[in-house]
Amino acid sequence: MISSLHDQDSYHFGSDNYAGAHPLVLEAIATANGGHVQGYGDDPYTELLRDSMRELFGERAEVYPVFNGTGANVVALQALTPRWGGVFTAASAHINTDEQAAPERLAGLKVLSTATQDGRLTPEDVSRAATATSPDDPHRAYPHVLSFSNSTEFGTVYSVDQTRALVAAAREHGMRIHLDGSRLANAAAATNASLAELSDGVDVISLGGTKIGAMVAEAIVVREPDAVSGIEIIRKFSMQLASKQRFISAQLLALYDGNLWLENARHANAQAQKLAERLRATLGCEVPLEVEANAVFARLAPGVADAVRATGIKFYDWPALPGVVRLMTAWDTPDHALDRLISEIERASAS
Amino acid sequence: MISSLHDQDSYHFGSDNYAGAHPLVLEAIATANGGHVQGYGDDPYTELLRDSMRELFGERAEVYPVFNGTGANVVALQALTPRWGGVFTAASAHINTDEQAAPERLAGLKVLSTATQDGRLTPEDVSRAATATSPDDPHRAYPHVLSFSNSTEFGTVYSVDQTRALVAAAREHGMRIHLDGSRLANAAAATNASLAELSDGVDVISLGGTKIGAMVAEAIVVREPDAVSGIEIIRKFSMQLASKQRFISAQLLALYDGNLWLENARHANAQAQKLAERLRATLGCEVPLEVEANAVFARLAPGVADAVRATGIKFYDWPALPGVVRLMTAWDTPDHALDRLISEIERASAS
Amino acid sequence: MISSLHDQDSYHFGSDNYAGAHPLVLEAIATANGGHVQGYGDDPYTELLRDSMRELFGERAEVYPVFNGTGANVVALQALTPRWGGVFTAASAHINTDEQAAPERLAGLKVLSTATQDGRLTPEDVSRAATATSPDDPHRAYPHVLSFSNSTEFGTVYSVDQTRALVAAAREHGMRIHLDGSRLANAAAATNASLAELSDGVDVISLGGTKIGAMVAEAIVVREPDAVSGIEIIRKFSMQLASKQRFISAQLLALYDGNLWLENARHANAQAQKLAERLRATLGCEVPLEVEANAVFARLAPGVADAVRATGIKFYDWPALPGVVRLMTAWDTPDHALDRLISEIERASAS
Amino acid sequence: MISSLHDQDSYHFGSDNYAGAHPLVLEAIATANGGHVQGYGDDPYTELLRDSMRELFGERAEVYPVFNGTGANVVALQALTPRWGGVFTAASAHINTDEQAAPERLAGLKVLSTATQDGRLTPEDVSRAATATSPDDPHRAYPHVLSFSNSTEFGTVYSVDQTRALVAAAREHGMRIHLDGSRLANAAAATNASLAELSDGVDVISLGGTKIGAMVAEAIVVREPDAVSGIEIIRKFSMQLASKQRFISAQLLALYDGNLWLENARHANAQAQKLAERLRATLGCEVPLEVEANAVFARLAPGVADAVRATGIKFYDWPALPGVVRLMTAWDTPDHALDRLISEIERASAS
Repeated sequence: MISSLHDQDSYHFGSDNYAGAHPLVLEAIATANGGHVQGYGDDPYTELLRDSMRELFGERAEVYPVFNGTGANVVALQALTPRWGGVFTAASAHINTDEQAAPERLAGLKVLSTATQDGRLTPEDVSRAATATSPDDPHRAYPHVLSFSNSTEFGTVYSVDQTRALVAAAREHGMRIHLDGSRLANAAAATNASLAELSDGVDVISLGGTKIGAMVAEAIVVREPDAVSGIEIIRKFSMQLASKQRFISAQLLALYDGNLWLENARHANAQAQKLAERLRATLGCEVPLEVEANAVFARLAPGVADAVRATGIKFYDWPALPGVVRLMTAWDTPDHALDRLISEIERASAS
Repeated sequence: MISSLHDQDSYHFGSDNYAGAHPLVLEAIATANGGHVQGYGDDPYTELLRDSMRELFGERAEVYPVFNGTGANVVALQALTPRWGGVFTAASAHINTDEQAAPERLAGLKVLSTATQDGRLTPEDVSRAATATSPDDPHRAYPHVLSFSNSTEFGTVYSVDQTRALVAAAREHGMRIHLDGSRLANAAAATNASLAELSDGVDVISLGGTKIGAMVAEAIVVREPDAVSGIEIIRKFSMQLASKQRFISAQLLALYDGNLWLENARHANAQAQKLAERLRATLGCEVPLEVEANAVFARLAPGVADAVRATGIKFYDWPALPGVVRLMTAWDTPDHALDRLISEIERASAS
Repeated sequence: MISSLHDQDSYHFGSDNYAGAHPLVLEAIATANGGHVQGYGDDPYTELLRDSMRELFGERAEVYPVFNGTGANVVALQALTPRWGGVFTAASAHINTDEQAAPERLAGLKVLSTATQDGRLTPEDVSRAATATSPDDPHRAYPHVLSFSNSTEFGTVYSVDQTRALVAAAREHGMRIHLDGSRLANAAAATNASLAELSDGVDVISLGGTKIGAMVAEAIVVREPDAVSGIEIIRKFSMQLASKQRFISAQLLALYDGNLWLENARHANAQAQKLAERLRATLGCEVPLEVEANAVFARLAPGVADAVRATGIKFYDWPALPGVVRLMTAWDTPDHALDRLISEIERASAS
Repeated sequence: MISSLHDQDSYHFGSDNYAGAHPLVLEAIATANGGHVQGYGDDPYTELLRDSMRELFGERAEVYPVFNGTGANVVALQALTPRWGGVFTAASAHINTDEQAAPERLAGLKVLSTATQDGRLTPEDVSRAATATSPDDPHRAYPHVLSFSNSTEFGTVYSVDQTRALVAAAREHGMRIHLDGSRLANAAAATNASLAELSDGVDVISLGGTKIGAMVAEAIVVREPDAVSGIEIIRKFSMQLASKQRFISAQLLALYDGNLWLENARHANAQAQKLAERLRATLGCEVPLEVEANAVFARLAPGVADAVRATGIKFYDWPALPGVVRLMTAWDTPDHALDRLISEIERASAS
């Protein structure tokens, strides 16, 4: 038996994936264990997961559990596009910057992007992209799909109205719509909207599990089955089909067959609010982007970030905004972690 | 909290991935849980895993945890080949038949294959493939890599001597060598050889976890670091890099930091031996392939297989040998499951 | 102005692409020259080519000129398959052996092949391949397309009846059908059948130009437009769209807007017949494969091939049949080249 | 024999690839014709071409003839990058906008781009791109190659000094360097610099043939052989290897074994200068970008462009600059074509 190799009471602000798994997720895994169950998704946990997803996303929803967020995105985008697919997204989108070009390398997709103020695309952005070429132009790649992230990489959130306007613009041009929802729970917690409302008109959602308390589990939720083709085959050759899929589905059930997803997201968001408030009020830091989900951007005086990191607390600079750091809270960030961060920033700022 | 949806005392013979996770694997996951740990492999469990792998495979070994076997294979093959890579393997190899052409679709690899008697390649097969073209021929794809599986898809096992002869033939032609070891534990149990001996001269091993008691965990073990390039980048864009990698590594530690892998494999193999013996001796079935690892092939009278399956026990026909079924045992196959299978076959044969 | 660097009266038997361009092809190029014409296929030569192809292949035919045969094949196969496409073909097929895995590397296609006696597939081969898996199986690649070559790489020819039987078998399993017709002209000359008859039921034909007298020109002829999608876009990103396409189309017009293709093929075939006859009758060589198109396979005594090649005449060994050489005739192979070859073989055999 | 289907004295301004082939190019093709010559580049014309290229680009230069510009670019970029390659270029670059994402689809390349004023990148652009990530970062694609076009898609030209500064910036960051020189002849004519000077420090050049008077011929010129790998194999599977390559090489010889390339480029540039002068001086049009090579951008009053096009003269709007049209001259644009264009613009502007 292995022994613990890490400090179980140490917390960071580097990413919400620094967090571990919620105890109920581990319980669900144990529940799904024992005996033999057919592999590759022919199991009762995956079946129940479909029911759960239909309650959340409507009666036509289909769900395809996968290993990680990049997998969810790239499988979804392939299922939504022909061989000559193009995807329009924000320049800051995870699919454009943080997936080592998996959309291009594995799927041959052209990622067409535009700079945004705060990670959110506007209907005008979509119209401009759609009219810059035509689906029949042999020379220039066409954006067959709009992909937007909610919450965004900047911690901002699309409201239900903003989502609907964006979706309407894409529909007008015949585009299909993908929602990178690795943090959709946080957006729901921020807006008090349902997952269904926040994906109204969306064809396919990459629904996050790992960042909101799972160990290794994400789901592709198809709201519009007519918009996709070959998704089970694509998932397989994209190496995202788990043989013991019952354990992936069980994790997702722990979160989504009930409200754990929402409780976890609310906690993370609330800790971000507290953190932002204390940074502003107590420390007088500039917080340049509105804090809506679980990311806090803060401008620190020169040297402060490194001094705080020297105490062992991990977080990243945000190169897009020089002098600014990104502080992520998670489903398990305790108050004492906030206290310690604030006091270390205070100490470093004073010296 | 979710409730159990399956019969925890039901066992099948469809595949060793029908089995669940070993209790020590779940314990290891729980041990790795709690607090925040850096993502993407910068964690102490992954670090310890490297030490474990060096004990098993030698001091230069590097390990890259991934999600599944297809992922391990396709990442490994990409790291071993240039853009214009070719791979030589047995026609029955998993990479050729059961990965939905992931090597071709994701990596553009040419899979060159040859038919075999029992899943095992010979040195002559390798020489023939290597001399059919040259690495500089612009027209014909060259086999830069030999990929062989041990144990094979036919349940047969390469001995240490057979491995060394095969490896020597590949080396002679300048080929690199990949071992698909999703069931290397079973081969080790069958031969009483060490993992190091069974991969002597091999550059990269896809080392199985899931089939031998993990939940979702495989490892790419690089024995010859000079033979690979870009493997961390390849793993990322191939969508096989877990954000919460501590949990993948913990599963592998539960198996390989100690002897659990071997105990589990020995159990599976022993149950296969028992099963084969009873099929032959008690029931008089033909067992057309030697039983070396955890697969038993048995010829059943017409109608028997379907009658047994009608009782709820799952297993597959083996189309390559008409009239023959494949029966897989797992790390957890209990004696009573063998009893039940044998008695159901007996009953069906009698009627 | 450049001067001639080669012996304009030297002939070989290495390949029909050693031949140059027919004078009428050069005249057609000159005719299409002068002034400005819109690029990328919006030109009157391409338009006329479509009319010519409809006369040859029926009223629904569409034509897409490309640069070379590999381009024609790989564009056609992409247009016929989804992202997860598979192709069934003879092991000896050009797409399987001589295109440096372009189908796999550029299009992610799984090439599923079977060994044949003489390069020709049978309806049974097709049925076996189609029933080895199903289009919905996530694990195993499915052969969505049958691709066959006429004439084959062995110089053999499918008759109209053989073609129809093969096509019927593929249709029965819902497969689409591609004909690699880089030497379809030779097959037509050999069978006295029309191009339409030899492609009855075929969806897409790679129609040869270069080997039958063009300089650089092949055509993708779509007989069943409902079977393809995105072909113009695929041609572009597959780098097979000529900017000055009028010149590609003009070459094809020189051949196919009239009977030049047939005259050229008849000449090549006739020279092959003469050559085979003289090899057998005069020299007593074994000619192990029936000579139907423009390839002659001949068994030469040890050392003879190299001795003949030492005189400057080029041709290749045929490794599939040890001791056998392949001798290709072309649209321009003159009698004196046959005379010289025969006499050099005779001389070398005598010594 | 086909008859002429177009007006041989009609000229347009849509693209320099509307032009035909120079008479000396057709003569060279005729010279290379006749008899049999080995295929796939083993011919004396390709050999002489290498000598010509060494005279132009230095003693270590290697040349690989291909069919078209997209082919030259995508083969070159693959030869310069690993499987996980990235390319930095101007947002307006042909590889980013006009090749239907061939770099992404065929080669899995990440195209990283930045907006420019006039199509020209600066050393600062290069430094910013190179430092935004690192070659070892698994998450973010790295720009292994700088690709710049000279002349640019805006008709602007990099001087020798600008080229050297750009190359130095890329070298400093360990990047390799690709020059899209489909109109390098025009840049040379514009700057009075040699091709060698304009590619000083460049690893690989896509050297234009088609736009400067060839029929169908481009060349990949490797100045730094150590920077590329597998280029002959890549060319083959990228479907850019001509079987009758003597005819591609002959076209390139007609242009580059002597000064025809320069004369043609000088003519095209001179006609652009005349055109710009008359647009400005005679018609009072704004010409918003400096005319350096063979592209003229002109702002026309509303309705004028369409009125001129209605007379049969073809040219394109330039969406990047609303109200502006792009007028391209070619190696053969006669004075009377300029006269006609000017007078039609004048007439349309008057009405």
